[in-house]
Amino acid sequence: MEITLGEVAALLNGVLEGGSAETRVNGVGTIDAAGPAEISFLTNMKYARRLPDCRAAAVVVDRDAEVDSPVPLIRCDNAYLSFSRLIESFAPAIPLPDPGVHPTAVVEEGVELGEGVGIGPFVHLGRGVRLGDGVRVASGCFIGAETTIGAGGILYPNVVVRERCVISERVILYPGAVIGSDGFGYAPDGPRWRKIPQIGNVIIEDDVEIGANSTVDRGALGPTRIGRGTKIDNLVQIAHNVVLGENCIMAGQVGISGSCKLGDHVILMGQVGVAGHLTLGDNVIAGAKSGISKSIPEGETWLGLPARPTMTTKRIEAAERALPEKLRELRKLSKRIEELERRLAELEG
Amino acid sequence: MEITLGEVAALLNGVLEGGSAETRVNGVGTIDAAGPAEISFLTNMKYARRLPDCRAAAVVVDRDAEVDSPVPLIRCDNAYLSFSRLIESFAPAIPLPDPGVHPTAVVEEGVELGEGVGIGPFVHLGRGVRLGDGVRVASGCFIGAETTIGAGGILYPNVVVRERCVISERVILYPGAVIGSDGFGYAPDGPRWRKIPQIGNVIIEDDVEIGANSTVDRGALGPTRIGRGTKIDNLVQIAHNVVLGENCIMAGQVGISGSCKLGDHVILMGQVGVAGHLTLGDNVIAGAKSGISKSIPEGETWLGLPARPTMTTKRIEAAERALPEKLRELRKLSKRIEELERRLAELEG
Amino acid sequence: MEITLGEVAALLNGVLEGGSAETRVNGVGTIDAAGPAEISFLTNMKYARRLPDCRAAAVVVDRDAEVDSPVPLIRCDNAYLSFSRLIESFAPAIPLPDPGVHPTAVVEEGVELGEGVGIGPFVHLGRGVRLGDGVRVASGCFIGAETTIGAGGILYPNVVVRERCVISERVILYPGAVIGSDGFGYAPDGPRWRKIPQIGNVIIEDDVEIGANSTVDRGALGPTRIGRGTKIDNLVQIAHNVVLGENCIMAGQVGISGSCKLGDHVILMGQVGVAGHLTLGDNVIAGAKSGISKSIPEGETWLGLPARPTMTTKRIEAAERALPEKLRELRKLSKRIEELERRLAELEG
Repeated sequence: MEITLGEVAALLNGVLEGGSAETRVNGVGTIDAAGPAEISFLTNMKYARRLPDCRAAAVVVDRDAEVDSPVPLIRCDNAYLSFSRLIESFAPAIPLPDPGVHPTAVVEEGVELGEGVGIGPFVHLGRGVRLGDGVRVASGCFIGAETTIGAGGILYPNVVVRERCVISERVILYPGAVIGSDGFGYAPDGPRWRKIPQIGNVIIEDDVEIGANSTVDRGALGPTRIGRGTKIDNLVQIAHNVVLGENCIMAGQVGISGSCKLGDHVILMGQVGVAGHLTLGDNVIAGAKSGISKSIPEGETWLGLPARPTMTTKRIEAAERALPEKLRELRKLSKRIEELERRLAELEG
Repeated sequence: MEITLGEVAALLNGVLEGGSAETRVNGVGTIDAAGPAEISFLTNMKYARRLPDCRAAAVVVDRDAEVDSPVPLIRCDNAYLSFSRLIESFAPAIPLPDPGVHPTAVVEEGVELGEGVGIGPFVHLGRGVRLGDGVRVASGCFIGAETTIGAGGILYPNVVVRERCVISERVILYPGAVIGSDGFGYAPDGPRWRKIPQIGNVIIEDDVEIGANSTVDRGALGPTRIGRGTKIDNLVQIAHNVVLGENCIMAGQVGISGSCKLGDHVILMGQVGVAGHLTLGDNVIAGAKSGISKSIPEGETWLGLPARPTMTTKRIEAAERALPEKLRELRKLSKRIEELERRLAELEG
Repeated sequence: MEITLGEVAALLNGVLEGGSAETRVNGVGTIDAAGPAEISFLTNMKYARRLPDCRAAAVVVDRDAEVDSPVPLIRCDNAYLSFSRLIESFAPAIPLPDPGVHPTAVVEEGVELGEGVGIGPFVHLGRGVRLGDGVRVASGCFIGAETTIGAGGILYPNVVVRERCVISERVILYPGAVIGSDGFGYAPDGPRWRKIPQIGNVIIEDDVEIGANSTVDRGALGPTRIGRGTKIDNLVQIAHNVVLGENCIMAGQVGISGSCKLGDHVILMGQVGVAGHLTLGDNVIAGAKSGISKSIPEGETWLGLPARPTMTTKRIEAAERALPEKLRELRKLSKRIEELERRLAELEG
């Protein structure tokens, strides 16, 4: 695709500042790497110092950005989101299976495929699987019996979705993700562990994405549920019977223990762990590597191991840093007190 | 399956309290979700307040549970374990490959298959692989040359077990698990790292389960060994030459570094890490996210980063919480001492 | 292979001490497990006490090792590296696909295969994939359109490399590794998250190894890059646009957030996490489970959560351990000060 800067500005409902509306562009790039036929963006002003070396045709910035640029600017609302739309325009198509069923695929009895479904090589669809319109299932995926996947879903290579799961529309499962494996449930039987059958399933709502090699276990009895619009990064573990709300963000290597209930728009940064049976309210945020061992009320931001409100943790961390010095002070005070006691005893005679 | 409450009580060697022994049930469910033809259970008494809204036909509780219920109860020993047996009775069959070898599977020379072995589509069995009676290998699994898997084993889709591993009876490997990949061993050679061939293998004893996308590396020289009855959750990393004892529990995202030796019935909660070459005695328990950098004697319970005995860590955490306040106190004491010194000097003056 | 101790000594450019140069050996083993026709090694002197029970034909040690051994020794430079070479000599061949394309593999248009390339069963090579001489791709791998893999590369079973990635020579990808999945990038659009297309790729330089079930995401715009000779363990997450230098070591379950830039020979131990957009200089080392939230200058060694220079963290940890006791002291000092104040007031009368 090739369009003019004028067209880009119109597309973003923005204003071109400097440069010619006739300049033609055919791609996007970072401030450092964009070439003269590409557009870049700048939302973090600490990178503004790189503008003089920028070779891009124009740079997308927020409408009110205070920036003085040798490079033409396109000012618009929400530059980050706008640039994201621009990337969509220029993005190369992702190679996914064309409509039709690859001759190597194994399709069991009772499978129902919507319009335009594309099934790649070495895919195995179990009995009674139902795939909505336009679903694409890439090489090596397995979908277990009676599982349904709504319209527009994408399964990248080597994804496994086990039996009886219910996946809604436009869900994306990245390579190697495993949905619906058994929850980790065992009853002690003397020194041994007796497996508790995990007869629930996984329900995934619209527009969810689940990252590469992440795992979402099926419920023990009821379902494990991922709310609409929630995005899960790579190598994340969601245990049985967890309920995630809508539009949550689970960054890489997060782990949520069994039966936790998270509200809407909860954001857990990388490597956070949540202990079992906790409730995190809407809009909770937890900083990277937090170890959450208590329920957290709506809207709070926590951090640390053990996790506490971020301000508390920051104060404790500052105090810790001072601690070796403060313990030396304590020893000195102790000596001064001894000295005072000695002198006072002398005075008291 | 449909049976009566009387039959359920007999099955669990329990006593029906309230309700009719003739009531027919056909499933199990949670306190909140069970319908009038289902049985539920209650072992954590904090959920007893939900009983008035419970629609189940009956609820399984411990024989001596102090609970006053509008819903019929079945009292029995070890309600949790008993209910687990009940779930087994009602669990739907898991779709796994029927006996026989799927025509798409690739079976190399010298493979030996026991009675009733089921091999799914796109499975590759290397030279000399031996599978015991009733082993089922689902779609997309790879089993490397000379590996043996004992009777009753289940490999879910897309599992990889590399060459020369020895897996005993009734072992379950969940989707995407990788057994016998090279251990992470390199010798420094100037600034570069020279790979040390990993010529050991993995030995897995009876009744072990290994979770989705978990990895158990082969030993450098000798084996990596997982003891009988040990259960490993998802996304767990077991490094080369680790020895796990019997009936251990490794929760999600645990990582065990090379050459560690764990005793029997060790329980590591989610995201625990264990440094290399350590020994954890029988019955050690480590709390979630602990970072274990020392060997731990038998029977101890540790927690924290760095991990220490749980009581020590709890005391330190309590002290930390008080720390910012205590440092303010310290400053005040320092001022009071200065003041005392001034006044005392005056008196002495 | 069977060779004499004299030949082994010559191979390692070492000296045989005790024992006969004519003794024949056919393998290697650990101090504890090596049999009379095997060679062992000893570099960690704490294991020297096991020598009296060692049955090996000879033990490789550093030239100047202070060890008194009942077992014949072979003294040489860098015993660890030398023994590693010895293992290479004795290592059994790893079963990988023979040259040729397995009849079940799916090879799309425009694929170019070098000399001696071996493609296993159920492999899918997308349009325009190019594989250099001797590349071996094991069962169930997927390689996306236009991706190139340099000579000597090995892909173990069920690896996924998505489209347009560039992998250099002698790279090893262990089972289940996922290269080039979408980076985790979303722009807020009201309460919802709008996916930002990830149109970059992954570039992997010579001699890199990436562990089982690890994930390396493609860049948002530019590439994610792994420098020559870097070794990555299992279940590691490398986010979009990360740049790793040469000869780095990333141990198990490490996570690197987006756009981090690591220098050469950076060593991150198990379960370390690095926050986004940070820079770690050459030769930085971070201890296990560190949570790195600041850039780290060249050559420093950090530890802890939050990570700080190791000496600082160790001092803080020591102070923490003393903290409950010190807070009790503080209370006592406070009482002694009160007492002093009371007595002084009396004196001042």
